[in-house]
Amino acid sequence: MKAEIISIGTELLLGDIPDTNGQYLARKLSELGVDIYFQNTVGDNPKRLSFLLKQALKRSDIVITTGGLGPTVDDITLETIAAFSGNRLILKNKILSGIKKHFRERGLTMPNINKRQAYIPQGATALENKNGTAPAIILEEKGKLLISLPGPPSELIPLFEEKIIPIFKKKFTLKEIILSRTLKITGLAESAVAEKITDLLRLEPPLTLGIYAHTAEVDLKITIKEKNKESAWKKIAKIEKIILGRLGEYVFGKDSETLEACVGKLLRSNKKTISVAESCTGGLISNRITDVPGSSRYFPLGIIAYSNREKTKLLGIPDELIKKQGAVSKEVASLMAENIRKIAPSDIGLGVTGIAGPSGNTLVKKIGLIYIALSSGE
Amino acid sequence: MKAEIISIGTELLLGDIPDTNGQYLARKLSELGVDIYFQNTVGDNPKRLSFLLKQALKRSDIVITTGGLGPTVDDITLETIAAFSGNRLILKNKILSGIKKHFRERGLTMPNINKRQAYIPQGATALENKNGTAPAIILEEKGKLLISLPGPPSELIPLFEEKIIPIFKKKFTLKEIILSRTLKITGLAESAVAEKITDLLRLEPPLTLGIYAHTAEVDLKITIKEKNKESAWKKIAKIEKIILGRLGEYVFGKDSETLEACVGKLLRSNKKTISVAESCTGGLISNRITDVPGSSRYFPLGIIAYSNREKTKLLGIPDELIKKQGAVSKEVASLMAENIRKIAPSDIGLGVTGIAGPSGNTLVKKIGLIYIALSSGE
Repeated sequence: MKAEIISIGTELLLGDIPDTNGQYLARKLSELGVDIYFQNTVGDNPKRLSFLLKQALKRSDIVITTGGLGPTVDDITLETIAAFSGNRLILKNKILSGIKKHFRERGLTMPNINKRQAYIPQGATALENKNGTAPAIILEEKGKLLISLPGPPSELIPLFEEKIIPIFKKKFTLKEIILSRTLKITGLAESAVAEKITDLLRLEPPLTLGIYAHTAEVDLKITIKEKNKESAWKKIAKIEKIILGRLGEYVFGKDSETLEACVGKLLRSNKKTISVAESCTGGLISNRITDVPGSSRYFPLGIIAYSNREKTKLLGIPDELIKKQGAVSKEVASLMAENIRKIAPSDIGLGVTGIAGPSGNTLVKKIGLIYIALSSGE
Repeated sequence: MKAEIISIGTELLLGDIPDTNGQYLARKLSELGVDIYFQNTVGDNPKRLSFLLKQALKRSDIVITTGGLGPTVDDITLETIAAFSGNRLILKNKILSGIKKHFRERGLTMPNINKRQAYIPQGATALENKNGTAPAIILEEKGKLLISLPGPPSELIPLFEEKIIPIFKKKFTLKEIILSRTLKITGLAESAVAEKITDLLRLEPPLTLGIYAHTAEVDLKITIKEKNKESAWKKIAKIEKIILGRLGEYVFGKDSETLEACVGKLLRSNKKTISVAESCTGGLISNRITDVPGSSRYFPLGIIAYSNREKTKLLGIPDELIKKQGAVSKEVASLMAENIRKIAPSDIGLGVTGIAGPSGNTLVKKIGLIYIALSSGE
């Protein structure tokens, strides 16, 4: 089973917005075990879209388009599909009343322009879109499936998950599934991680290992394509064990776990609380900590003492210490950590001070110099 | 002048990572006035890459590939280009010594595997990549330009800006330029914005208006393609004036200006300072304010009083008020704003308290209920 994605929209083609739909569909399709060989992006241009449709339906079993289903003149997906497949666009009264209802429920009258969205290619099936006015359209062409989804992710994602996936599962016997496990690493650079697992990075399908670097993190993704779920997980677990044996302490979590969620889990299981005194990070650290649901159990307080005056006033950092060592110093960071722990009070205090730039560079202390201190009372 | 982009990498094709390079190149090319009709994504597969190269070189003048220039076996871009164009891969000693130098400067010895990156198609030109080991490769084929750039954005972007753009400017007479102006709107939903400018959204090239919705913001982007810069800006200014006439007070900034930068500009020009007392937002507001360079001039202090105890202790909110009105109430938000203003002290105080979820829902106060208070002393 081979699928192909066509993302339609001049704003995508010119790079005004990222093609998050293309990425989402690609990930979902490969999770389902559907092969993808090509993704294409094209503007709101009937001739070029027509060319891509023809090419895609020749080489793939399923073609999914996103975008171009809106009510305005530059939305050309359905009329292009109709022309290409030799079908007329016909008015579907059921769709039209659905669109009218959508506006009515919001206390609005349907603008005339939206009537356009009730015309679909003859022979096609429309799937109701409860989050917008453009339905999803499915057209079968010589055993191949052409699916058109609306561009807004808030409409496309529910339509795909609630309506398209069940159709796939019913229509096709998806023989193989793709499973994956991501191990998340911090504290080691990508190349240092790679060096320790060079042999594993050379694994060939159906079992592969990918390495991806992010800010302060490296992901190792084990992927397997197999018929049997149980044996697939066993094979993944084997690789996971080898990686943990080599990188153990640097692996902080897996799959969608974030560093802050793992920190939160540790705090909760140890029944500890943390408070944060930040300067240059301006609330970023507190915000990441509180992004975790349930963080109110272990995070009582954050103080962003952006000015030196506030460091003295609210965090009790002596004015003389700041004058002597500088606000960006080991001594000030340590005292920030200690004092915020006592002020809250919490079990752990974190103090962060540094030069974030763009100004503040000095001969001795450069932009990027950061002191991070942790006080546990011990 | 027509260009086409081919993004290479199985991790892109399967949706593991977003194709930020494709978007970057598309935006840069259209700013340069180069037309783009297609973007393609393909995996690390020589046969399918070869197919795309052939198709792209037939219909476009410039073909840019990204990715697949690394040292590992799944990096197949150059050998595919060599095979496709009938050239051999030949070892370039200059590139090899550059790669060796790259490692030496980091106190490392070049792993043998990296020697692979010093082989380029015969007849091609290599451009030094100071941020990595893979050079950019340019091959001229019958008057057409095939450019291969490395995948990591930290290598691709400097190479494109410092080396490829100057080549374009020298080699091609780029007759038309594309200019744009984005007006940034907050406080109105996308549909409400659209209603006020329906006529302008129907403008046809070379002068168009696009509408894009983001969280809490709507962008209106005026784009023009013209030969003359001066007359292009005049035409943009005309549309801008019409939009401002209709949406005036909702337009807070333009182009890359952020809401927080505009707030900062207003504070600075009025010589006012602001401090923030946050609860459910957990540092997000302070962090957005301090993300603006120079914000230390107007932001002395933020307090994240996540627990009720801290609201009482640090922000002076009486325990009885919290008990009577609830921590999420108009009264508590107002007092948070007033007290943080006095504590800092600053000219303006902002108080935010609410129920962020996922837990905390009650019959009377639902998840999503937020109180925002501003205290100016007046």
